[in-house]
Amino acid sequence: MTTIAHLNARSTPQAVRMAAREGSLAGPTSGLANGYVQVNLVILPESQAAGFLRFCQANPKPCPLLAVSEPGSRSCTLLGRDLDIATDVPAYRIYRHGKVSDTRHDVSDDWRDDLVTFALGCSFTFEHALIEAGLSIRHIEESRNVPMFNTSVPLTSAGGFGGNLVVSMRPFAAADAIRAIQITTRYPQVHGSPVHLGDPSLIGISDLSTPDYGDSVSVGKDEIPVFWACGVTPQQVLIDSGVEFAITHSPGHMLVTDIPDSSLALF
Amino acid sequence: MTTIAHLNARSTPQAVRMAAREGSLAGPTSGLANGYVQVNLVILPESQAAGFLRFCQANPKPCPLLAVSEPGSRSCTLLGRDLDIATDVPAYRIYRHGKVSDTRHDVSDDWRDDLVTFALGCSFTFEHALIEAGLSIRHIEESRNVPMFNTSVPLTSAGGFGGNLVVSMRPFAAADAIRAIQITTRYPQVHGSPVHLGDPSLIGISDLSTPDYGDSVSVGKDEIPVFWACGVTPQQVLIDSGVEFAITHSPGHMLVTDIPDSSLALF
Repeated sequence: MTTIAHLNARSTPQAVRMAAREGSLAGPTSGLANGYVQVNLVILPESQAAGFLRFCQANPKPCPLLAVSEPGSRSCTLLGRDLDIATDVPAYRIYRHGKVSDTRHDVSDDWRDDLVTFALGCSFTFEHALIEAGLSIRHIEESRNVPMFNTSVPLTSAGGFGGNLVVSMRPFAAADAIRAIQITTRYPQVHGSPVHLGDPSLIGISDLSTPDYGDSVSVGKDEIPVFWACGVTPQQVLIDSGVEFAITHSPGHMLVTDIPDSSLALF
Repeated sequence: MTTIAHLNARSTPQAVRMAAREGSLAGPTSGLANGYVQVNLVILPESQAAGFLRFCQANPKPCPLLAVSEPGSRSCTLLGRDLDIATDVPAYRIYRHGKVSDTRHDVSDDWRDDLVTFALGCSFTFEHALIEAGLSIRHIEESRNVPMFNTSVPLTSAGGFGGNLVVSMRPFAAADAIRAIQITTRYPQVHGSPVHLGDPSLIGISDLSTPDYGDSVSVGKDEIPVFWACGVTPQQVLIDSGVEFAITHSPGHMLVTDIPDSSLALF
């Protein structure tokens, strides 16, 4: 149970998953196994899975689908070798009747033969690309979680799911904002290009200093807030839609896959 | 001398050049031979051409080089068949000692065996791409010239040339601004992505309603001004640098080439 001491940016995805499986990793995955795609998970009974798949298809910016498992399967070879969906995430949330009822480090006992897993891209991948391009990401500089906001932007309702878009915000000087748009455009499977920039009130955000999720970060007077569709959106949708049963990862506690970040770049 | 009546968006580049050569076209080329690259021209004696080439290389956003002619040559097969640099532009400017001394419709009599022609990309190409993507360009909507501004952004001095960047401005709603950044990124040879967006004062522009060149356009309160490097920059540089002799096209009176706009898209 000392594996956690050895986990860092250079760990393999397999090592991170094994540490979560063994219980030695129970914390967030940010900064671990750099260079590999980490994914948001939404796990639903088959009876709702077809509807949720249509919902993701209709809302690809907040819900970019990387993989969908076969019903009941705890493996997903598209995501990684020797991967167990029910054990390899450091922390899970269980939803009952539209409320978060539990947080677990293992959902083997909650597993059902009808569960379908949706793996959705996560902004960690494009943040790595931004950093490699020399851009500075404020919440990382300030050792905080990215600020996230509910918006007034309606999602496209489909399959019984709906709600409003949740966005993450990163402030940049104008030239860096332009560069960030170019770089994230290359990664449509991890939210892609921003959905808004500039005046937050135009998308229903009244105060940048009081995010609905995550932490606030400083925004310079010469900087422009840039807003990306956020992977918290589907979790909020599960709650808004009052789903009877669902499992997700716990925010920040992602499934680390064997997919190289670079393989998701369009060009 | 009635060719002009027949020129329109569907004219061939050859027909437009021939009309300029014959003298039946003396006006601007905007809206003619749509789908073909129109270029800014800078024509300099060989003694200054090597320096200007270094200057363009150091400042590719305002001075994106599409072609450089051999000294003394009035043709340029890279730009088009049966093309005469000294006659095929509807209007030229002649500079002497850093001042515009004349406007001509033909510079055959001013031609010299040591003149080198620089063809620089023009924003008409990316504007066509923006319109094809469904974006609305304000100055075209309002039947005006694009507003252009001197800025406080220094160019990289090279080869005896220097000065400040001149930009063009197009206002967009945020989502369209993001789309415009993506589209123009595909066209680095016609100024490429914007150099700035948002607060004009950060690049030394005090009032958007009083452009230094072109016309003012309306900017909605929910819109963001987006600024691109502008082909007027090299003309201003010729003046600032006090060149002894130079020829350029007259603003808006471009050389129409045989190069399809689409061939300049990076991807």
